[in-house]
Amino acid sequence: MASLRQRYVVSRPVYSEDSFEENYERIERIRKSTKDHVREYFSCSSERLKKTALSLLPVIGWMKNYRLKQWLVGDVVSGVSTGLVAIMQGLAFSLLASLPASYGLYTAFFPVLTYFLLGTSRHISVGSFPVLSLMVGAVVTRLVPDQGDPAPIPAFRNLTQDQQRVLVASSVTFLMGILQLGMGLLQFGFIVLYLSDTLVSGFTTAAAVHILVSQLKFVLGLTVPGINGPLAIIYTLEEVFVQITSTNICDLVMSLIIMVIVFIVKELNDRFKAKLPVPIPIEVIMTVIACGISYGFNFEKKFKVQVVGEMVSGYESPVAPDLQIMKEGAAEAFPIAVVGFTVAFSVAKVYSIKHDYTIDGNQELIAFGVSNMFGATFRSFAASTALSRTAVQESSGGKTQIAGLISALMAMIVTLALGFLLAPLPKSVLGALVIVNLKGMLMQFREVPFLLRRDRTECVVWVGTCIGAIFLGLDLGLAVGLGIELLTVVFRAQFPRCAVLANIPGTDLYKDRKDYLQIYEPSGVKIFRIPSPIFFANVDFFRNKLIEAVGFNPMRVLKKRNKALKKIKKLLRQRDFQVTEKGLVDLTDQSALHLQELDSPVKVDCPVKVDCPVKVDWRSEQAEHLGVPAVELHSLLLDFSAVSFVDISALKGLKAVIKEFLRLDVQVYIVSCDAYVLEKFHHFAFFDADVGTSMFYPTLHDAVLRAAETRRSDGGPVVRLRRFAQSHTALTRISSDTDQL
Amino acid sequence: MASLRQRYVVSRPVYSEDSFEENYERIERIRKSTKDHVREYFSCSSERLKKTALSLLPVIGWMKNYRLKQWLVGDVVSGVSTGLVAIMQGLAFSLLASLPASYGLYTAFFPVLTYFLLGTSRHISVGSFPVLSLMVGAVVTRLVPDQGDPAPIPAFRNLTQDQQRVLVASSVTFLMGILQLGMGLLQFGFIVLYLSDTLVSGFTTAAAVHILVSQLKFVLGLTVPGINGPLAIIYTLEEVFVQITSTNICDLVMSLIIMVIVFIVKELNDRFKAKLPVPIPIEVIMTVIACGISYGFNFEKKFKVQVVGEMVSGYESPVAPDLQIMKEGAAEAFPIAVVGFTVAFSVAKVYSIKHDYTIDGNQELIAFGVSNMFGATFRSFAASTALSRTAVQESSGGKTQIAGLISALMAMIVTLALGFLLAPLPKSVLGALVIVNLKGMLMQFREVPFLLRRDRTECVVWVGTCIGAIFLGLDLGLAVGLGIELLTVVFRAQFPRCAVLANIPGTDLYKDRKDYLQIYEPSGVKIFRIPSPIFFANVDFFRNKLIEAVGFNPMRVLKKRNKALKKIKKLLRQRDFQVTEKGLVDLTDQSALHLQELDSPVKVDCPVKVDCPVKVDWRSEQAEHLGVPAVELHSLLLDFSAVSFVDISALKGLKAVIKEFLRLDVQVYIVSCDAYVLEKFHHFAFFDADVGTSMFYPTLHDAVLRAAETRRSDGGPVVRLRRFAQSHTALTRISSDTDQL
Repeated sequence: MASLRQRYVVSRPVYSEDSFEENYERIERIRKSTKDHVREYFSCSSERLKKTALSLLPVIGWMKNYRLKQWLVGDVVSGVSTGLVAIMQGLAFSLLASLPASYGLYTAFFPVLTYFLLGTSRHISVGSFPVLSLMVGAVVTRLVPDQGDPAPIPAFRNLTQDQQRVLVASSVTFLMGILQLGMGLLQFGFIVLYLSDTLVSGFTTAAAVHILVSQLKFVLGLTVPGINGPLAIIYTLEEVFVQITSTNICDLVMSLIIMVIVFIVKELNDRFKAKLPVPIPIEVIMTVIACGISYGFNFEKKFKVQVVGEMVSGYESPVAPDLQIMKEGAAEAFPIAVVGFTVAFSVAKVYSIKHDYTIDGNQELIAFGVSNMFGATFRSFAASTALSRTAVQESSGGKTQIAGLISALMAMIVTLALGFLLAPLPKSVLGALVIVNLKGMLMQFREVPFLLRRDRTECVVWVGTCIGAIFLGLDLGLAVGLGIELLTVVFRAQFPRCAVLANIPGTDLYKDRKDYLQIYEPSGVKIFRIPSPIFFANVDFFRNKLIEAVGFNPMRVLKKRNKALKKIKKLLRQRDFQVTEKGLVDLTDQSALHLQELDSPVKVDCPVKVDCPVKVDWRSEQAEHLGVPAVELHSLLLDFSAVSFVDISALKGLKAVIKEFLRLDVQVYIVSCDAYVLEKFHHFAFFDADVGTSMFYPTLHDAVLRAAETRRSDGGPVVRLRRFAQSHTALTRISSDTDQL
Repeated sequence: MASLRQRYVVSRPVYSEDSFEENYERIERIRKSTKDHVREYFSCSSERLKKTALSLLPVIGWMKNYRLKQWLVGDVVSGVSTGLVAIMQGLAFSLLASLPASYGLYTAFFPVLTYFLLGTSRHISVGSFPVLSLMVGAVVTRLVPDQGDPAPIPAFRNLTQDQQRVLVASSVTFLMGILQLGMGLLQFGFIVLYLSDTLVSGFTTAAAVHILVSQLKFVLGLTVPGINGPLAIIYTLEEVFVQITSTNICDLVMSLIIMVIVFIVKELNDRFKAKLPVPIPIEVIMTVIACGISYGFNFEKKFKVQVVGEMVSGYESPVAPDLQIMKEGAAEAFPIAVVGFTVAFSVAKVYSIKHDYTIDGNQELIAFGVSNMFGATFRSFAASTALSRTAVQESSGGKTQIAGLISALMAMIVTLALGFLLAPLPKSVLGALVIVNLKGMLMQFREVPFLLRRDRTECVVWVGTCIGAIFLGLDLGLAVGLGIELLTVVFRAQFPRCAVLANIPGTDLYKDRKDYLQIYEPSGVKIFRIPSPIFFANVDFFRNKLIEAVGFNPMRVLKKRNKALKKIKKLLRQRDFQVTEKGLVDLTDQSALHLQELDSPVKVDCPVKVDCPVKVDWRSEQAEHLGVPAVELHSLLLDFSAVSFVDISALKGLKAVIKEFLRLDVQVYIVSCDAYVLEKFHHFAFFDADVGTSMFYPTLHDAVLRAAETRRSDGGPVVRLRRFAQSHTALTRISSDTDQL
């Protein structure tokens, strides 16, 4: 074997970190302070200004390099295909937002225009996203319920219910835009980091369940009021089942047929993706057919089917967002803004990696912020992107946002010229199309068993987010999910698996002593590995694990020793006891027997040396007879290689423990401490007369060699307690005392 | 120097983790599954039952060992001193809870009785705690405001305002007890870990500010309604300043005098702590004097001073908590329960360490839960402990809860017999006493500059919690503080300082190459240290840092290589290009030139080997002429020693990066990976045909030796691109293509 031929040969002095520093010169590095960073951030130069301007209008960058011949055809084809999808989704998702269908077309138009100028992604299709639409719909139905009076907002006066709803939707969207823009300008693009794939998956699955439930009323042709707040899903289902007998059979049958056909064709599209130049626009076909049949047989009159109805032809005048509505919807606007951005960004990232260009989170926030504010003034509702639509845009050959622009034009054509054709379209058809499109999101349920097998913690995040979002509502659910997710990080760092290491004979390697057969543990040396960062929530955990590993509680041993010392002192005074061996103690010199009270409160800065001329060999057997546990340990090595950070609580706790061991005459070595963590030690003023930098060692092997060496050269004169231990009265008295508690 | 005399000599084979496993037998350890843990937890034996019973009634344990002669005197003396303090604090803190003063005496009595039986701490003085009293007071004044109607709760009918308030306080306290008991039974004692010292300090400081503001009205003799909710403190101060002209001078002067005297005597008490057997009960003395003066000069009538008034003599009948009030106060009861327990536990812990006995968090929760439920039925309000009172109990010689029992008896005597004496006591005196007692809590502001110097993150936690609790109210503020605190853990793990390591010549040590002058970096080898756990929030961060460290983006290089390969293939077909050196390629064998499309979507499981018979030496200069960046790197070492955990996102990201480097023919080594983290790799099915366990190495030096060796033995026949590079047309065309984006 190759590995056996090659040898690892090292011969060098044993180093502590201190002696290493003496031998190898260190470069003084001046690190930037926060002030420098701030100064740099706000510094201004013409170069930087130009760059910022360019980054604020990415369109300039990519339009310069636009390859007309190679890309234009693809963009146009893609734009048309995407446009068809966008129109259908716009109509359908406006139902989720509890708005008239025409506003979905607006959402497929206005936000795209500004995103074209400001966005950094070339492939995403901007427009409505079902989850966002539903979240907006929640605010809409809260402020303007189906039944009963709308919220007492002055701006609602003299408006029809639909106009009130549009006002609510556009105000909330405007606020969402403000929030996104603000986050973008404040460089908050990093928030997307905290919404992990697992969390987003659980959240969107819950959203799919909400969407499914919200569409039931259309598919069944019922009139169920929009219900909000925690447990709304339960109440909505209850309403649906109460009314189930009044199901409109015409709606139901039509929906089922459409669902089955669309489902099958979509599967075929998927299977023959490679062979089809453009996927079959089955949704458009079914819509056209349904429109025709509904018109021909006059479904609206004959079967009392709810239809889309006459749409506003053309565009309406801009509307000013209402401040009071924004205030009412503020709590909901924030999660809407975050979810909208997160979804768009994660989809954009997939395609940016695939096509090798960079997208900028902060610029995306700015782009979506402006797009939503712009769209909101023209009565469109919350825009982000839908994965399905973006997939169409990219797969049908879209190279840049020119495709998006063309899809927006398609939406405009329908709004301006063809809207009247959609009037007889039954709402149940749109509901059915929404439900069919949920397949992908609902299929994410399959992740649960996968996650359960791989990582239970992750599974908890998924299930917690999903259940939270289903039952508490999407906004609260997102907060719950985020909380759980952040807690998992804390938990993972908090309860690691500690280990006692030992040497692999013949090597400088140290492994968990429970894992290997051939292992050598030097006597009196304990190597304790701390396998995670130390912070407020686990410093006590480590203390307990360490006590478990060494086999005794240093504080308790100290107290027992102190009690024994007091007894010795007393007996010495009574002349009941003679120091026989080596005769070091002058019995007349009792004044020198000043023993510090060890059971004074544990203060970190109190002096710990016991000024006692009687040096007792606590490692002797006699010590044990005195009721003082024998401490075999002379060197404690703490493997810090995995300690990636420490906080103040950790350092306080660590210092207390180290002092306790030092008072027991156990040498403590801190090994493989990260340079940055060591800096923290200095910064916290960790070191004092007792605890110095000399305890730091670069490797375990250095520390073990040093520990063995130190111990060999140790061993000054000690007083044996033989005589004393034999003094039976004293012995029993002391041990009964110390055992009592 | 000693360190230079001793040498570190190692000679052993170079190991990878795989070859190490082959040489050293590993013990199969069977780890307990969750199921085993659950089974163990619910297992039942008579031994265990007895132990559980004993742990549920700790009084049995310590009463058995009670040393009558040694401890009783101390307990009695301590009980009397503590009793005096408890009475004063009970009266004063009932003002904070907006309740008549007598209920404070109840709180000093009832909860102590049950805690005596159930508590594990021998030193804490159970009873009212100002912060808790204020939190209860917030619910009380919300449901039963000073002015205006109380909340529409049926149980309020036919009750006076004070009776309504007592009902609210006892119901909330009962609910708090239920929550604490529940948490105790569910073993939730660990929650105290998450309330770090910093957080508790910031929180209690904010509470002190709230208490100060709430007492202003008593000190100034004003009638300010209790205000609740976010920014309540601002509104309260506004109210106070609006009314400032109607200040009752008698109240103000008396308060100021009392504050000054009590403050001075307390300072003296503190200074001569060692000399005084028992601190001077100045508060009691001042109260008695104030009572006398108030009675003598008839303050109530003459100066319209608000007095405590006639107290209910004796105890009232038990009261059943009201369910609807509990529902209304549920949101507040939870933080009250948590804060009450946390404060008591942290105080108890200090004394348990000092006196070397163990306290049990879960049993403490049970004890406080039962005590609060018991107390609540007898109309007392939320009990915990006050640091000041506990300090008196311990310092005046209290050894066990017998002292607590005696202090409770003192409170009983006042309630039953002496209550009438307190009737003329002005409320301003109690307010003044509360304010003087805030000194310690307010002094915690001094921690801010200390923390700012030591650790800014910790300072943010303190200030965030404090400001949050001051302006949002104590309950919301606690939640905010907890959120910030948990985020700090995530942040610390998320943005560590990455480093590129290099060898210290002559040793097997590797340090940050920027830190040392004498440093050796083997050519083509890059050692990247990942100094923290890897998880969803920082996997991208590490990817970017790694790209920065190696100096190129592997994905981009791959794409450029692919483009160049396509061109080569095209030129080969056009016979425009001859392979001159070593003539390995048969030009007729074009069918073999099947190049995989490298820019297909980045899937982790896609095969990555390029099946190309033309082996291009991408490290040659010519490659650079083709617009393909030269990659000097042949071995990438990832130092995993500080990676204490990984999650699914991390492993996905890591695998993608590793595959990219492998496709660039860069060998990746993962070094010093924790055994537990390695287990995770296996668990996630990380390994496949390309990414195997062979890349794991125990130490950096092993991996570097192996990397150098591998590279030396490498170097098969490659096709030089000299001729091709000289073909000028092709060159410019390709490089213009690849540079365009």
